[in-house]
Amino acid sequence: MKRSVAVRNIHRASTDSIKELGRMGVATVHEAQGRIGLMKPYMRPIYPGARIAGSALTILAHPGDNWMLHVAIELAKPGDILVVAQSADNTDGMFGDLLAESSMAHGIQGLVIDAGVRDTADLKAMGFPVWSRAVHAKGTVKATPGSVNIPVVCAGAYINPGDVIVADDDGVCVVRRQEADTVVKLAQKREENEETKRKRLKAGELGLDIYNMRQRLDEAGLIYVDSIDDLDTFND
Amino acid sequence: MKRSVAVRNIHRASTDSIKELGRMGVATVHEAQGRIGLMKPYMRPIYPGARIAGSALTILAHPGDNWMLHVAIELAKPGDILVVAQSADNTDGMFGDLLAESSMAHGIQGLVIDAGVRDTADLKAMGFPVWSRAVHAKGTVKATPGSVNIPVVCAGAYINPGDVIVADDDGVCVVRRQEADTVVKLAQKREENEETKRKRLKAGELGLDIYNMRQRLDEAGLIYVDSIDDLDTFND
Amino acid sequence: MKRSVAVRNIHRASTDSIKELGRMGVATVHEAQGRIGLMKPYMRPIYPGARIAGSALTILAHPGDNWMLHVAIELAKPGDILVVAQSADNTDGMFGDLLAESSMAHGIQGLVIDAGVRDTADLKAMGFPVWSRAVHAKGTVKATPGSVNIPVVCAGAYINPGDVIVADDDGVCVVRRQEADTVVKLAQKREENEETKRKRLKAGELGLDIYNMRQRLDEAGLIYVDSIDDLDTFND
Amino acid sequence: MKRSVAVRNIHRASTDSIKELGRMGVATVHEAQGRIGLMKPYMRPIYPGARIAGSALTILAHPGDNWMLHVAIELAKPGDILVVAQSADNTDGMFGDLLAESSMAHGIQGLVIDAGVRDTADLKAMGFPVWSRAVHAKGTVKATPGSVNIPVVCAGAYINPGDVIVADDDGVCVVRRQEADTVVKLAQKREENEETKRKRLKAGELGLDIYNMRQRLDEAGLIYVDSIDDLDTFND
Amino acid sequence: MKRSVAVRNIHRASTDSIKELGRMGVATVHEAQGRIGLMKPYMRPIYPGARIAGSALTILAHPGDNWMLHVAIELAKPGDILVVAQSADNTDGMFGDLLAESSMAHGIQGLVIDAGVRDTADLKAMGFPVWSRAVHAKGTVKATPGSVNIPVVCAGAYINPGDVIVADDDGVCVVRRQEADTVVKLAQKREENEETKRKRLKAGELGLDIYNMRQRLDEAGLIYVDSIDDLDTFND
Amino acid sequence: MKRSVAVRNIHRASTDSIKELGRMGVATVHEAQGRIGLMKPYMRPIYPGARIAGSALTILAHPGDNWMLHVAIELAKPGDILVVAQSADNTDGMFGDLLAESSMAHGIQGLVIDAGVRDTADLKAMGFPVWSRAVHAKGTVKATPGSVNIPVVCAGAYINPGDVIVADDDGVCVVRRQEADTVVKLAQKREENEETKRKRLKAGELGLDIYNMRQRLDEAGLIYVDSIDDLDTFND
Repeated sequence: MKRSVAVRNIHRASTDSIKELGRMGVATVHEAQGRIGLMKPYMRPIYPGARIAGSALTILAHPGDNWMLHVAIELAKPGDILVVAQSADNTDGMFGDLLAESSMAHGIQGLVIDAGVRDTADLKAMGFPVWSRAVHAKGTVKATPGSVNIPVVCAGAYINPGDVIVADDDGVCVVRRQEADTVVKLAQKREENEETKRKRLKAGELGLDIYNMRQRLDEAGLIYVDSIDDLDTFND
Repeated sequence: MKRSVAVRNIHRASTDSIKELGRMGVATVHEAQGRIGLMKPYMRPIYPGARIAGSALTILAHPGDNWMLHVAIELAKPGDILVVAQSADNTDGMFGDLLAESSMAHGIQGLVIDAGVRDTADLKAMGFPVWSRAVHAKGTVKATPGSVNIPVVCAGAYINPGDVIVADDDGVCVVRRQEADTVVKLAQKREENEETKRKRLKAGELGLDIYNMRQRLDEAGLIYVDSIDDLDTFND
Repeated sequence: MKRSVAVRNIHRASTDSIKELGRMGVATVHEAQGRIGLMKPYMRPIYPGARIAGSALTILAHPGDNWMLHVAIELAKPGDILVVAQSADNTDGMFGDLLAESSMAHGIQGLVIDAGVRDTADLKAMGFPVWSRAVHAKGTVKATPGSVNIPVVCAGAYINPGDVIVADDDGVCVVRRQEADTVVKLAQKREENEETKRKRLKAGELGLDIYNMRQRLDEAGLIYVDSIDDLDTFND
Repeated sequence: MKRSVAVRNIHRASTDSIKELGRMGVATVHEAQGRIGLMKPYMRPIYPGARIAGSALTILAHPGDNWMLHVAIELAKPGDILVVAQSADNTDGMFGDLLAESSMAHGIQGLVIDAGVRDTADLKAMGFPVWSRAVHAKGTVKATPGSVNIPVVCAGAYINPGDVIVADDDGVCVVRRQEADTVVKLAQKREENEETKRKRLKAGELGLDIYNMRQRLDEAGLIYVDSIDDLDTFND
Repeated sequence: MKRSVAVRNIHRASTDSIKELGRMGVATVHEAQGRIGLMKPYMRPIYPGARIAGSALTILAHPGDNWMLHVAIELAKPGDILVVAQSADNTDGMFGDLLAESSMAHGIQGLVIDAGVRDTADLKAMGFPVWSRAVHAKGTVKATPGSVNIPVVCAGAYINPGDVIVADDDGVCVVRRQEADTVVKLAQKREENEETKRKRLKAGELGLDIYNMRQRLDEAGLIYVDSIDDLDTFND
Repeated sequence: MKRSVAVRNIHRASTDSIKELGRMGVATVHEAQGRIGLMKPYMRPIYPGARIAGSALTILAHPGDNWMLHVAIELAKPGDILVVAQSADNTDGMFGDLLAESSMAHGIQGLVIDAGVRDTADLKAMGFPVWSRAVHAKGTVKATPGSVNIPVVCAGAYINPGDVIVADDDGVCVVRRQEADTVVKLAQKREENEETKRKRLKAGELGLDIYNMRQRLDEAGLIYVDSIDDLDTFND
């Protein structure tokens, strides 16, 4: 049988990179690192407006069992984000106001959980952001050990402990710890590039022109007609 | 054939118990009564922040047919909550601003419906809270009678007329009418207990210590390693 | 092979009718035109409170490819609404803040998309309303041409370019361009009718009486009993 | 807290009624008892062609925990059907070939489970029919007690221990134990009635005529036109 | 209000084209006509192995109401396929063995329904193929008229009465009546083309070579490495 | 940007281990390796009865784009299994009879794909087994390069190229290449153990006794009552 393991020490990305990734947000980071690292779109914030970034403290839990969350909190460093994967699909309310109190007492910034969460009004009042698969009050047991700080698949994304989690209203993105500095640079370049484009688009220039799309569209077979009545629908 | 029935009189829990259950909210009540009574997590409030409790005035309706809602409103007592179950899955907009006006005129506190609801901006403005499976404008007919005040299954929960409904941002929970007083007491005990725990957790104490989990985790097979490189993954 | 086509010119409904349809909102318009034209309930606004109406500028895009959005923006007239259908189910983030800047620069009012959208916090700040199947940051390519201003099926609704789109917190409804004026009249009649009913319902009159339902319910087989104990459950 | 309970003795319907309900099948029984008692359509047989009826031996289990199945098998009588409800949505493979061997050794006819099942090729080879929410190999634990022979909600249907379960390729239907004899009679009447109709329909007579629908359709507003071009789409 | 209408006469494609489309099957026809016309993948056959093509006799029905099916059968011509769209999502068992007897008596080939079907074991025994969203025994009423032979959206596809329906184990595809002959020709060309490719692929030639993909892949940025250890993951 | 990469050479597990894992099947292997490695339950075989095991040739493809499948086939070794992950959820028919011909010509055993598949009747006739998320005929393009033989997340499971895939009627399981031999031994031990249990269970012995559950159930709080009327529902 696979052992249940709690790994005490993990490597983390630099505080500066983490901070900068958080400032830039999910969409920019995802694009900058080559359109990878997103969790599934069912991962939604329990209240709008939060944006965080931090090191993943990973947890593998079993359906209906939140025991490992207590184990994880002891191993957290200030700024970490709890990332809870499930060994099978589950929507139980694994986390509520008491665990949030405990998490905040240990400097944990927020929670990303491929399961349910409860006491959501309290969590909002406390300012503890959560991205989850569901909101549900269903209580859980503490009977079967899982693991802490092992690689996990959470909401379709593969995460190593210490990878950087970025989360905002668009969802959740993961950046490999070893690539964090590179991704920061690529994302900064992207931001500058976007800023120029934004100004031109705002001034009314068309993407068709800015990106030189007209010829490529023509080669790809797009035809323009003045009216739908002018249309032959099939190519030769 | 099963008759379509409207039952005029039902028993209700005491006003004090209902009020207290509402104050405590879904998660606490659900836990206090032994982790039962929750509706499925797809039941979501149409706007955040409402918390209500009241006696269930149950309705069994057919897909796309909201006739029984009119029958139910006549039988309501102030403080009741309309609970609409469906004979088959449906998301039609069975309830809108006119039915909300009528409901409020008769003292009904809110609506729990395993179907759709519409005029949601108006309902929010009127302060009439709804928990539903969907928001959809799809109109319904008044052609096939269902029943009012019979036992129903709504969003996975079994409900007798007069059972207590508690609903907030976490979802919807049902308390058996006959058990309402007992559940209040159990929930109050739980609240006191939680208060103590909250203070200790807030002060940084660990759940591992407060709940004496360390030995049990060890017996259950959890092992700690300093680094993931120290790990033998399989047990003997 | 079916050609990829961009149709430059489309007919639009009158500005007055569009404006009035927008004032009345999705539920009223849907009812007034005979309970047709709704998109599926999975189409949700990215922030609450917006209500718009405009002419549909239709787009057929392929999964993961947002190329046609750039083609469409050039063809837009002020007040138009982008309506993006997919050739297969997809939740990729086809639209973000840059496309919103471009859209706003050309007078486009909003977006209805049977796919994902991203930069949602920015879109909210910019006041650019979107109704979508998903919020997801997943980046898209510009590789396969689709079409602009052809008839499409979007979220279960059939839409011709130039049809009127009405969207609010209840979802999205489509009105045939040629029927817009008729629907406005039918909807106004409905509003007046509703106003009278609203007053009576607010005063406590019952729908049962206002709509003369009692006899029809009786004929349909509904029986009243004082208590559930008085009940014979099967008809003869 | 709610106790975990195993109830040793339950009442069962008569063997004759159970047998006859099984012969008639889900659709007939469901109709005969007034269109109630169906489980949700996601409950599918693991192989086609089985049709069984028997007394429900009910089990309430927790996500990922199949402990109670062992408790239930000891309490079974030959001909019983295991009915497994879950305290929260779950698709884990709670039942496989070993539990099937044990079930068959005790005369259990089949399994209805609102969760997953595994070893499905073996179960088919053994001739042990199962209706389930999912096929999944995910293993389960034996850590948290649930209950046996208490009322449960399984796949949307409320079931008391000893109620009659009918299951075939159309899904699963529940008949109240106390109503089994009545439902048999109503269903037999329905079968006779259907037989006459079947002959007439097979001979080419129309339902419109057999059921005298033409006048009712006319009164309900259906109009006939020879061609779609003759159509005024809106009523006055 | 939109009228409920039954249109008596519709145009149909030629028998030869219909027959040929049926022989070629869903995947070939879909490709040949430019990758359009597919219903959503949730439309599944109730038993494997059937392949049919015929003219669509379209039906718009309301949730839980199968009245219009009786109206439609009278208007069918031998070889037609019933195509049932819903005004809102629904899984009720709108069609069973009696309607199948009636349909077969009038030469109807099969059923495509965006709802549920029942008596599936009987339908299989009768050899009456059905593609549906669900199998469910839930009974329906005959209370609200819909329409027959009007354009509908069924499972995401827009269908005019008389369009050709092709259905097999891969799902359901719609061909515009007016384009049927053209699509037959395009599909035949595709078949010939595929036959050549099939032989070459069967002989071990690679698609990379047959389709001359190597250069395009290189230009698109694909790089080959001998081992994953040789990999620089980011482009410059 | 992340490069698109095709890795030519991968390590594979021993043929003997692969063969033995295939003989034992998904449920046994999943249990033996500690209840890990399963794909989501939505991964279903297109026809029942196949059971295969082989080395994963991994593919990361984009929605609606099957280009990489051609790249992968060239890199396959006899016995390999194609494992197709998607960069975002998609159900398009990425694989059909031509790709199956090509795959079989190169000794590929089968396909595991987190997307759609088509020509399923042909694939069944050819004896080419597929486990997929959907059956859909939707055609795909060849426009955007993905990668071959990089680590992927497919249907919730993390897979390295060369890991062993086991697939049968219960779904799909992944075994780490480096752990294959160990897992074989653990699984063989499990089989022997199960054989003994099977005999005892078949003879009518109870799991309660074989696994010594009675005392543990009692300690966990399970109480037995003779009848439900004897029941006090709440613990002290």
